Amino acid sequence: MNRHVFVLNGPNLNLLGEREPHIYGIETLDTIRDRVQARAAQVGLTIDFRQSNHEGVLIDAIHEARKSAAGIIINPAGLTFYAVSLLNALEAYDGVKIEVHLTNRSKRADYYHRSLVSFTADGMVEGLGGDGYVLAVEAMAMKLARKA
Amino acid sequence: MNRHVFVLNGPNLNLLGEREPHIYGIETLDTIRDRVQARAAQVGLTIDFRQSNHEGVLIDAIHEARKSAAGIIINPAGLTFYAVSLLNALEAYDGVKIEVHLTNRSKRADYYHRSLVSFTADGMVEGLGGDGYVLAVEAMAMKLARKA
Amino acid sequence: MNRHVFVLNGPNLNLLGEREPHIYGIETLDTIRDRVQARAAQVGLTIDFRQSNHEGVLIDAIHEARKSAAGIIINPAGLTFYAVSLLNALEAYDGVKIEVHLTNRSKRADYYHRSLVSFTADGMVEGLGGDGYVLAVEAMAMKLARKA
Amino acid sequence: MNRHVFVLNGPNLNLLGEREPHIYGIETLDTIRDRVQARAAQVGLTIDFRQSNHEGVLIDAIHEARKSAAGIIINPAGLTFYAVSLLNALEAYDGVKIEVHLTNRSKRADYYHRSLVSFTADGMVEGLGGDGYVLAVEAMAMKLARKA
Amino acid sequence: MNRHVFVLNGPNLNLLGEREPHIYGIETLDTIRDRVQARAAQVGLTIDFRQSNHEGVLIDAIHEARKSAAGIIINPAGLTFYAVSLLNALEAYDGVKIEVHLTNRSKRADYYHRSLVSFTADGMVEGLGGDGYVLAVEAMAMKLARKA
Amino acid sequence: MNRHVFVLNGPNLNLLGEREPHIYGIETLDTIRDRVQARAAQVGLTIDFRQSNHEGVLIDAIHEARKSAAGIIINPAGLTFYAVSLLNALEAYDGVKIEVHLTNRSKRADYYHRSLVSFTADGMVEGLGGDGYVLAVEAMAMKLARKA
Amino acid sequence: MNRHVFVLNGPNLNLLGEREPHIYGIETLDTIRDRVQARAAQVGLTIDFRQSNHEGVLIDAIHEARKSAAGIIINPAGLTFYAVSLLNALEAYDGVKIEVHLTNRSKRADYYHRSLVSFTADGMVEGLGGDGYVLAVEAMAMKLARKA
Amino acid sequence: MNRHVFVLNGPNLNLLGEREPHIYGIETLDTIRDRVQARAAQVGLTIDFRQSNHEGVLIDAIHEARKSAAGIIINPAGLTFYAVSLLNALEAYDGVKIEVHLTNRSKRADYYHRSLVSFTADGMVEGLGGDGYVLAVEAMAMKLARKA
Amino acid sequence: MNRHVFVLNGPNLNLLGEREPHIYGIETLDTIRDRVQARAAQVGLTIDFRQSNHEGVLIDAIHEARKSAAGIIINPAGLTFYAVSLLNALEAYDGVKIEVHLTNRSKRADYYHRSLVSFTADGMVEGLGGDGYVLAVEAMAMKLARKA
Amino acid sequence: MNRHVFVLNGPNLNLLGEREPHIYGIETLDTIRDRVQARAAQVGLTIDFRQSNHEGVLIDAIHEARKSAAGIIINPAGLTFYAVSLLNALEAYDGVKIEVHLTNRSKRADYYHRSLVSFTADGMVEGLGGDGYVLAVEAMAMKLARKA
Amino acid sequence: MNRHVFVLNGPNLNLLGEREPHIYGIETLDTIRDRVQARAAQVGLTIDFRQSNHEGVLIDAIHEARKSAAGIIINPAGLTFYAVSLLNALEAYDGVKIEVHLTNRSKRADYYHRSLVSFTADGMVEGLGGDGYVLAVEAMAMKLARKA
Amino acid sequence: MNRHVFVLNGPNLNLLGEREPHIYGIETLDTIRDRVQARAAQVGLTIDFRQSNHEGVLIDAIHEARKSAAGIIINPAGLTFYAVSLLNALEAYDGVKIEVHLTNRSKRADYYHRSLVSFTADGMVEGLGGDGYVLAVEAMAMKLARKA
Repeated sequence: MNRHVFVLNGPNLNLLGEREPHIYGIETLDTIRDRVQARAAQVGLTIDFRQSNHEGVLIDAIHEARKSAAGIIINPAGLTFYAVSLLNALEAYDGVKIEVHLTNRSKRADYYHRSLVSFTADGMVEGLGGDGYVLAVEAMAMKLARKA
Repeated sequence: MNRHVFVLNGPNLNLLGEREPHIYGIETLDTIRDRVQARAAQVGLTIDFRQSNHEGVLIDAIHEARKSAAGIIINPAGLTFYAVSLLNALEAYDGVKIEVHLTNRSKRADYYHRSLVSFTADGMVEGLGGDGYVLAVEAMAMKLARKA
Repeated sequence: MNRHVFVLNGPNLNLLGEREPHIYGIETLDTIRDRVQARAAQVGLTIDFRQSNHEGVLIDAIHEARKSAAGIIINPAGLTFYAVSLLNALEAYDGVKIEVHLTNRSKRADYYHRSLVSFTADGMVEGLGGDGYVLAVEAMAMKLARKA
Repeated sequence: MNRHVFVLNGPNLNLLGEREPHIYGIETLDTIRDRVQARAAQVGLTIDFRQSNHEGVLIDAIHEARKSAAGIIINPAGLTFYAVSLLNALEAYDGVKIEVHLTNRSKRADYYHRSLVSFTADGMVEGLGGDGYVLAVEAMAMKLARKA
Repeated sequence: MNRHVFVLNGPNLNLLGEREPHIYGIETLDTIRDRVQARAAQVGLTIDFRQSNHEGVLIDAIHEARKSAAGIIINPAGLTFYAVSLLNALEAYDGVKIEVHLTNRSKRADYYHRSLVSFTADGMVEGLGGDGYVLAVEAMAMKLARKA
Repeated sequence: MNRHVFVLNGPNLNLLGEREPHIYGIETLDTIRDRVQARAAQVGLTIDFRQSNHEGVLIDAIHEARKSAAGIIINPAGLTFYAVSLLNALEAYDGVKIEVHLTNRSKRADYYHRSLVSFTADGMVEGLGGDGYVLAVEAMAMKLARKA
Repeated sequence: MNRHVFVLNGPNLNLLGEREPHIYGIETLDTIRDRVQARAAQVGLTIDFRQSNHEGVLIDAIHEARKSAAGIIINPAGLTFYAVSLLNALEAYDGVKIEVHLTNRSKRADYYHRSLVSFTADGMVEGLGGDGYVLAVEAMAMKLARKA
Repeated sequence: MNRHVFVLNGPNLNLLGEREPHIYGIETLDTIRDRVQARAAQVGLTIDFRQSNHEGVLIDAIHEARKSAAGIIINPAGLTFYAVSLLNALEAYDGVKIEVHLTNRSKRADYYHRSLVSFTADGMVEGLGGDGYVLAVEAMAMKLARKA
Repeated sequence: MNRHVFVLNGPNLNLLGEREPHIYGIETLDTIRDRVQARAAQVGLTIDFRQSNHEGVLIDAIHEARKSAAGIIINPAGLTFYAVSLLNALEAYDGVKIEVHLTNRSKRADYYHRSLVSFTADGMVEGLGGDGYVLAVEAMAMKLARKA
Repeated sequence: MNRHVFVLNGPNLNLLGEREPHIYGIETLDTIRDRVQARAAQVGLTIDFRQSNHEGVLIDAIHEARKSAAGIIINPAGLTFYAVSLLNALEAYDGVKIEVHLTNRSKRADYYHRSLVSFTADGMVEGLGGDGYVLAVEAMAMKLARKA
Repeated sequence: MNRHVFVLNGPNLNLLGEREPHIYGIETLDTIRDRVQARAAQVGLTIDFRQSNHEGVLIDAIHEARKSAAGIIINPAGLTFYAVSLLNALEAYDGVKIEVHLTNRSKRADYYHRSLVSFTADGMVEGLGGDGYVLAVEAMAMKLARKA
Repeated sequence: MNRHVFVLNGPNLNLLGEREPHIYGIETLDTIRDRVQARAAQVGLTIDFRQSNHEGVLIDAIHEARKSAAGIIINPAGLTFYAVSLLNALEAYDGVKIEVHLTNRSKRADYYHRSLVSFTADGMVEGLGGDGYVLAVEAMAMKLARKA
């Protein structure tokens, strides 16, 4: 059974750890990738971990996932709130979809409150920083186990 | 160090498993409690698991948690969307607060879209059914470990 | 066939007859109960008539009805407009559900205009005072007859 | 005492029974008229039952009712939601006014949620299909009895 | 030079004088027509005074005015607030257009606040009862004199 | 009987004739005052005609009118749309109040659409330029005649 | 197979060509009808082409189409934006429904932006003037061919 | 003359002094009760001082006040913003009603801005912490003196 | 220690007692000033009591208070709802600020619901007529005592 | 005369035929391109048919069209609803612009209802699947013929 | 050529430097005037620099500028957000108009977000403190040079 | 001290001078770059001037500026209004940020009114065409001087 999972990261997440650490925490995206890989190994998943500042590149990645991945974990970052094209790409993806946000969006400005991606995601982990990625991996494993 | 956690469940969750299973799934609240206890044991937490259909009873429980619990995991169910009193009780609680929702609220009617509880919660797990409780326990353990 | 019906009354309805009679009329809740019982007897229904000022008690009653009643007639009073928990309890109830309002809500303040309960009720009788309860009993009998 | 009642039906109700029966039911308007007549006879009312697809014709009928009818039962159908002229005609009518809707408007699209006619109607029966007309006749008889 | 003016009256205005006199006053439409004719004679205008409860009939009349009238005075009554078709008919009319309302709409319910007809009218007289028609005739004469 | 009328003009109306004539016309405020005086003489009224760019001065004038004038004709200009204090001053005035606007506000930007002054005025003449003042004088005479 | 199509035109379209040609173009409705007939002949359809200023007449026509026509092409003109009754008539029609608008509504006032008819139409051609009718005929032929 | 007054406190007010003192101050509810009693004694009132986290208990208390109290001072806390049932209970109470809020709600989140209770209260004291209760007692004495 | 307090009154308050007494009561502003002075003397404050119909004059007074007064009690009257300039003046004032409204604004028209002044005031007394001023003096004394 | 036309396709349209066929149909983009080419040949147009998931690439293509194409047919897909940059690129293009949407947006979620592209497009074909492209080619030919 | 420029300052700007320096900076209005004069001398402009807390005085100044000044630089302060009268005065001014705001309004409360003055200003400099005035002078010189 | 500044230009600005010159002026981006360079030389700044139609490229540039530039001047063009990702990139940049818009957005369509970029920019120059860039350079120099 397919146990391959894409973990996609949207714009500016390459700056994690150095960017506004009082909001986004001090973990870098590299650290998060390492933690994701470690937990994935424990629960029997393989991970393709990517980041891009280009919406089009992320859409292409989701199209690619249609052919090779059993699930997508995505932190769409700023694209969450306006990128209907990204939403449409995810709608065209039939595997398990889990959305991650580092911060609790309800505590931030109003334009962070509505996630377009949530209209298609299966589940979400929010406000738990880098831990949220690890929990999303675990959630993915549970979901895939139930489907198997 | 305090490792005790309250898991609070709002109105109608006592019906889980028999109530609209196409929406809320077939797991009963008892099964969820068992899974929560099991995972809590693994990560070194003790659990006080409660459910009430009365907002006042839940507020009293949160007040009680102020004295004995290091964290609260709460699925406020229908109260999520209007009970400012419940929000205020949680605001008066200084421990770790994690919100759980069984379903993805973005896919449901508009009056499910704004969670008042999110204005004070540290993090949220949403749309993952009973798994969400287990993940919340894990998230709680990570959060408490970091605080310790 | 089950011919038992719960008639549930929300907060403040115990004051009917003495409370703002220019708005709510001069009939007491006791009189209405008597009229309901009388009409129920005519159409072959039995009635369990209750009132509570506590949302939680009403939710418990709806849960109880899941086991014993073929239908619920409910005047949710002030809870109509905010109590998502009550709505959820009714959504978890599979029998016939008829909503009653003593007054015509469209002629009153804006916060009376949207009934949450209507999102799940089968039908509604509104603005007809105590007569509305009697008509709801008749409607219930027609509905149950069609189901039988 | 005047016991004559107009039952007015708005646009498209002539198609009842054949038009979207999963929404509007399988009863034809003729059947409903027969049931209305039968119940009216039981409660001592006479009925003038009409339908039109023309707003102006319905307004003329309401003007006519000013001279001959003790009450109006009206299902304004699509006109409910925009026809201020129809509302004004009903406001100029002093008898008893009862509004009927076949379906529960709260479960339908947003442009069905605000009834202009409710701003002047005495009461409403909604979501109960053809039964609603019969109940409206009964409600009318109760109202007129109280006035007599 | 063309001195002919249509005075068009919308739905329910045939009831003036007997309909809610505390709102609309005690003058009948016949009295108003007589006053309009008298003032028109003074200022050298001829009048074609009509009333209809049918939007289509009013639209036809406006089309007719395109060929024979130098101006239109219109009290669109209930149609003011929703009848885009009536607005469109008036937009297709090139003569002077003066809108009349018997009551001050700002003191009434919110659905009376936006006049669609105002988007094309040259001027408006509002809240002055039957006097408003007489003033509109005078305004029309002034406007036409300036155009001559 | 008191036949004295205040005609009050709000900010910037002193520029009439030179200010954006394509919007406000080429008549100066002096010409309008002369036309107002002439018509007032015909209908037996005396006029106190004032203009100010200061809201406070206009409020003082309305207070003064409480003691000496039977009616107020007011073109509040820009104050129309925000000056609740001016509205309150007019509410405290018991005589006849007629509002005048040179332009048709419905054809202009959205912040011109809601007149606060209309909440207390008896009637309004709008969109008819300087003619509107003359018509307001005539309307005032009719209103006062009816009161006499 | 049924190849008969109704082409229905709403209020004021009888004025096409003479009415505000800078907005609606210089083609008359007769010219459009001729072009529609010509293209219909090419693609094997027969046409019943009608116009009315009366909403009720258009509803009646749609009811008639239920019995004889395989499709309806409709330009509802001003009725597009408020006539729920017209929408309901079209909802009760099971054939192919194509909506036509002469102008691009997005470039016009806000009350032209929401088409009620679009909630039931299969497709729409907008902003292309009289060409839009010809394209709608072609679209109808394609749709019917696919159904055949 | 009746000089008895209920002072009712809503959810979470039992935590005063320990709960978010930077927002709600350091006075406990016991201290406030003592200050209220002291001032009441000075102005000749007796006090029944209660707190509950249960909406239903507060409604019951208001019903009880109908029989024994000349006035109610209420700090509805979180219930202020959604509890229509509490509003309805207060509407059914004919004595003097004074609302108290510890904080200035205008400086807080938007869901604190509309008080439902204000729709029926006679007056309000807001933003003055525990002093507000003492002032409310004084206000009550003044109001009752005027009624006596 | 500075015990001097400005009491500022906005537009139209000079009419108190004669202006709409069913809304604003029968007390004149002179009576209120006397009551304010009397209570101030009791609690050891001196008062500078002013009224103006000019926003600019009130702003100047607030600027003056910056140099001489320990607190401001202000009833901004109509300016409450739009005068951002007045709000800014108060924001630039560092002493204690207490807002007073004679009436309960929640029971009045919607444009009375949002007070701009509340965004900077420390506390508010509302709906208690002239008593509100006396209570504000008392509140001021308590506030200043705590600061001393 | 220039007879060259760009047909531009936005994000995810490369998935047509395999992506949610119950919504978007079973035709692939290749099939559509073939149909477009065939019809273009019939009406004497040449076609440059492109698709991209990158907004920037589409903007570049529109800039390129400024130099070589007489018209643009565009299906902006998800970009329709937020990409002001794409709108601006099209505004800077002077040729004929026709917008195509495969589905009827009015039947879908609210964030599909407002097309930014419509603010500059000449016309639109919507809800007709792949047929819409063919009709757009025909519309383009008609438009260009009229310009020639 | 006319090189005279009015620099107008709205309410409370006389307090600059002492008023909330964390928001408005430590420069006084005198310092700013000196900097404005210095830069004006460099670019060949003369300056009339004024401040008032009275809207009417500012309107009078703008009227005066109509006769003597080639441009107006205005910081309307609190009046920016409600004073339609001030907007109207500026609309009646034909010279160059540049708006200045000391702070970035987008970072402040919602009632600071819409500038009425921007509807008529040529340009704006915002969020740059006292530097903004100097830049506005430079902008004015550039604009006037281009007009010359 | 670092005196290097990025000047970033969003989508379509490469078309300046040829694109809708009645809106955006006749200056090309090359001319603006030359003027920017010239003024920068005068005030001792060096400039890196870029334009891209790709949001991702602009985000990458802002990330690059984190390492090498003391300030960013940005005209985000169409991205201003929706690109939360761009806003986030700028929020992660600690240097001076100045926003430039060629046109006065308040005079344009509603979707141009809210700038997301303003939520993080230090200051803005708007509506002054190419001059705005020069002024932004000057503003940057002033800001950096103050920081130095």
